[in-house]
Amino acid sequence: MKAYVYVAMKKSVLDPQGKTVQGALTKMGYKGVQDVRQGKYFEIALDPTLGREAAGAEVERMAREVLTNPVIEEFRFTIEE
Amino acid sequence: MKAYVYVAMKKSVLDPQGKTVQGALTKMGYKGVQDVRQGKYFEIALDPTLGREAAGAEVERMAREVLTNPVIEEFRFTIEE
Repeated sequence: MKAYVYVAMKKSVLDPQGKTVQGALTKMGYKGVQDVRQGKYFEIALDPTLGREAAGAEVERMAREVLTNPVIEEFRFTIEE
Repeated sequence: MKAYVYVAMKKSVLDPQGKTVQGALTKMGYKGVQDVRQGKYFEIALDPTLGREAAGAEVERMAREVLTNPVIEEFRFTIEE
């Protein structure tokens, strides 16, 4: 069982890393780039004997308490068999 | 139109960042964590007048030539309306 946790800056928070990438892409001639935001993700292999519900609860707790800074970041996650 | 580009270390490359997160989670008592790999992702807002096919080609070129280090990283991407 695998969990994917995606962490990104809140929309209201300036993302200088993304802006830098956007500037570079535009300067290098790539077309149609209007905005770039950069985030990180975690691919977590989970013990398959955990039930799907227990896994979801555990992953949400990890994401909220450890993987994300709740002041400036937000997260979403998916669980796959 | 939005493109999501996910970049991660190749499976054959050691991921010390992920290992550190894994160690921390286990030490903090989270259950069922067998492996963690960390990657980054880019959320790219694209000019909607680009066709979907042109957008796909452009995003793949960006990912291959700029966003990824092909020696140690691999990428996948999705495009959403």
